[in-house]
Amino acid sequence: MSKSNTTGMDHEDFRRCGKDMVDFIADYLTNISERRVTPEVEPGYLRPMLPRNAPEKGESWEDIMKDVERAIMPGITHWQHPRFHAYFPAGNSYPSILAEMLSSGLGIVGFSWAASPACTELEPITLDWLGRMMSLPACFLPFNPAHDNEPEISITNTDCDSQHSGGGALLGSASESILVAMLAARTNKMKSKRLEKPSIEDGQILSKLVCYTSKLAHSCVEKAGLIAMVKVRQLPVDEHYSLRGKTLDECIQADKQKGLIPFFVCGTLGTTSCCSLDNFEELGQICRRENLWFHVDGAYAGAALICNEFQYLTKGFEYVDSFNTNPNKWLLMNFDCSCFWVRDKCAVINAMSVDPLYLQHKHAEKATDLRHWGIALSRRFRSLKLWFTIRSYGIEGLQHYIREHCRLAKVFASLINEDDRFEIIGDVVFGLVCFRLKGKNKLTQKLLLYLNDSGQIHVIPSMVNEIFFIRFAICAKDACEYDMHIAFQIIQTHADGILFEYQKTTSSTSIRKI
Amino acid sequence: MSKSNTTGMDHEDFRRCGKDMVDFIADYLTNISERRVTPEVEPGYLRPMLPRNAPEKGESWEDIMKDVERAIMPGITHWQHPRFHAYFPAGNSYPSILAEMLSSGLGIVGFSWAASPACTELEPITLDWLGRMMSLPACFLPFNPAHDNEPEISITNTDCDSQHSGGGALLGSASESILVAMLAARTNKMKSKRLEKPSIEDGQILSKLVCYTSKLAHSCVEKAGLIAMVKVRQLPVDEHYSLRGKTLDECIQADKQKGLIPFFVCGTLGTTSCCSLDNFEELGQICRRENLWFHVDGAYAGAALICNEFQYLTKGFEYVDSFNTNPNKWLLMNFDCSCFWVRDKCAVINAMSVDPLYLQHKHAEKATDLRHWGIALSRRFRSLKLWFTIRSYGIEGLQHYIREHCRLAKVFASLINEDDRFEIIGDVVFGLVCFRLKGKNKLTQKLLLYLNDSGQIHVIPSMVNEIFFIRFAICAKDACEYDMHIAFQIIQTHADGILFEYQKTTSSTSIRKI
Repeated sequence: MSKSNTTGMDHEDFRRCGKDMVDFIADYLTNISERRVTPEVEPGYLRPMLPRNAPEKGESWEDIMKDVERAIMPGITHWQHPRFHAYFPAGNSYPSILAEMLSSGLGIVGFSWAASPACTELEPITLDWLGRMMSLPACFLPFNPAHDNEPEISITNTDCDSQHSGGGALLGSASESILVAMLAARTNKMKSKRLEKPSIEDGQILSKLVCYTSKLAHSCVEKAGLIAMVKVRQLPVDEHYSLRGKTLDECIQADKQKGLIPFFVCGTLGTTSCCSLDNFEELGQICRRENLWFHVDGAYAGAALICNEFQYLTKGFEYVDSFNTNPNKWLLMNFDCSCFWVRDKCAVINAMSVDPLYLQHKHAEKATDLRHWGIALSRRFRSLKLWFTIRSYGIEGLQHYIREHCRLAKVFASLINEDDRFEIIGDVVFGLVCFRLKGKNKLTQKLLLYLNDSGQIHVIPSMVNEIFFIRFAICAKDACEYDMHIAFQIIQTHADGILFEYQKTTSSTSIRKI
Repeated sequence: MSKSNTTGMDHEDFRRCGKDMVDFIADYLTNISERRVTPEVEPGYLRPMLPRNAPEKGESWEDIMKDVERAIMPGITHWQHPRFHAYFPAGNSYPSILAEMLSSGLGIVGFSWAASPACTELEPITLDWLGRMMSLPACFLPFNPAHDNEPEISITNTDCDSQHSGGGALLGSASESILVAMLAARTNKMKSKRLEKPSIEDGQILSKLVCYTSKLAHSCVEKAGLIAMVKVRQLPVDEHYSLRGKTLDECIQADKQKGLIPFFVCGTLGTTSCCSLDNFEELGQICRRENLWFHVDGAYAGAALICNEFQYLTKGFEYVDSFNTNPNKWLLMNFDCSCFWVRDKCAVINAMSVDPLYLQHKHAEKATDLRHWGIALSRRFRSLKLWFTIRSYGIEGLQHYIREHCRLAKVFASLINEDDRFEIIGDVVFGLVCFRLKGKNKLTQKLLLYLNDSGQIHVIPSMVNEIFFIRFAICAKDACEYDMHIAFQIIQTHADGILFEYQKTTSSTSIRKI
């Protein structure tokens, strides 16, 4: 309880309440499977449970926690629940939670080196570690591996023309990473067009800029296009749900004939819809030829690159200009933690930097200032999550986690395949299985509704080429074979009911028709 | 220690390590004043202290924490230190840390109502609380206070034409808030221009759009202009460092004569340079007349509106279209927590929304989906910080905190005023005092350098109208009068040395001249 109404909580209160919170979290995660995976509340449930106005006097911690139980927990969709198979995993692990605790406790803000040297320096180091774990081409790494055995060379802001211009930073989301890449590409292309024709106005160039992506790319590509005010072409995919070079090339040539200016291509390593892969080698060659910025979004599936057996996926990365993956999805780190690497960091800094006096400091020429990498000026000490989690699991532990999810997806897919009422959509490569009831979409739509309404399991839909299907993602940190069997049993039971009902209806319709 | 190299840390490990971390944080914040406020490291200090590659095997928690002490703590600029007077406060308090812990522990991601009802619903409730605490005009509040006594009406996505179209959300930073406001304004203006002249191309309109702000506005306005690709006019301020209506009007008229299209004005409530205020009433009237979007950035000083005696500052808010303040600055909440209110939420949603199938859900028509409010799709459960902190302190506790910082700024200013070698720059209204040594800028520049090099105190510079000065911000949560006296003593001691040296130099120069 607070010592005084006007001071919130003192050090000793925090020692007690903080330790209670640690137990609350451990209890929650230990016993999570006893809860419904989705809540039973309806929109608008919360406001009638809370006062219309904030309290005048401070309240006790006990009262606040009572309200967490009473009002918040009943409205939680439990992303860490073993029956949660929606979206993609929401990364979470104890080392990551500990990092968030430390980040909050230190209460620092890192926008320049001077404002927080440790935060500024740990970030490229952890992005370097992860980039190496993923075998990214050396040109993306914050530190040139060729110099590993040489004396330390400090990171600088001003090495835009040095031998090694790659780098990486943590951004708030994949959406921000893709927007930043697009803005850097836009700045580059506008600069070269202005050089070609100095009299041209920026607005004239802008209204001709076109970016290309697959129609299965994440919606944030479209959003980035809205913000950057450029046209976005969402191109069709092949039978493996992959964007191919020929499709891209035809669209680019048609656009150029209309006088438009292609400038950016966003490929996807693991689409949200069905975890498909674009053909980076084909797309990359076209980008190189046409001088387009090539970004690859590997928000979820990029994490798999830490396993050797998945590194074939980077075929074509020699043409890539920037790449992002979100350890807050599939590497056990809490949101937000989007890793963004770029071949030419100066392209990003040129597109994003403004430099007021109050942020200048005596080390500015020697030090990297991370504020130039994203939209926000300030940043939490986010790299602690990477550092703690990678160190606590080790490369082997993280590989084990990824491999286990991929193995379980295959286990689940084999259960689906054994029941001939179902079919799999797309390839099962990572931790996602897309499936449907054979036949009309409405059967699968009904199955989805029943599954989610049951509160026993949570899955979400997708649709590609008019085929409606259910995405089943392996999400729980400690998912095991038992979970696959339970999930399949739940699905089978609901499918039984739906198909029974459907057969009744169709046969009665047939009868009526007769 | 981990039970296994491949599983990171189990529930029982976390109970132990989490409680140790609680003590680590409490110890850190209890004893922080024993440390230097700024670190002694040089750029590039960290990498030689850490391995070039991530570890293959998981490491023990004890080893990780040893490295926190060995490698991270020596590189921390201590924002919570009683001698930290740089930038603005980095909000921090125990209830806020507890909220971050719970947010991490739950590990949910809130981008749609279905993905997390509690996260989606608590956010507008807490923005409503805070908006009422600040006496914001009712049009900005997520819930219309006129309906307080009526049965609950749920928040909807689709009420764009209803009586009450205001609302609020938490964004990642003031930079994002201002960018979102600018994008909404851009979309509105382009739409109306297209209606006037359907044949006009978007690029043609865009190349004519102009936004206006004071030259003391935060650099993120310029950055938002870079991203939105619009011209930004940084206008001169009056003798109180305030942007006035006449200055704005003259620039607008000149731009219109050139065929340009004014569309957005960003006023500041508490500039970063010297905490000055623009004249919202004068600016607002012009915005109304010219049909411009009027945003007010109150990132720091907006917090003062929770105290009645500061509510005169909202004079002119009847013309304001959107407003932001960052409780992560001056309301004891950890970064990131930027509150953004808007008079017409549909203007924001129209500018920002994309809607793929995998994010659609059966409640979509009845529920607000917060993903339409910002750049990122995903979001942490950030409103817990607002909820915990407001409840734990109560309105009175937070008011007390704000008033105490304002009072201490006046105490410090009176110390400065008593020493006639110094002068105050601007008005001391909030928790910031700007001062300098009388005479040439280089004296104050030297003083700044000496103060920061000493490690005894941390302050940063600013410069307005060619006058270089030092910003002294009251930052520590529990700052007291003693801290003001100590800070002033440190400043006096360094000033003594500099002025002594300077007098020696000038007198020896005089001698040489003779």
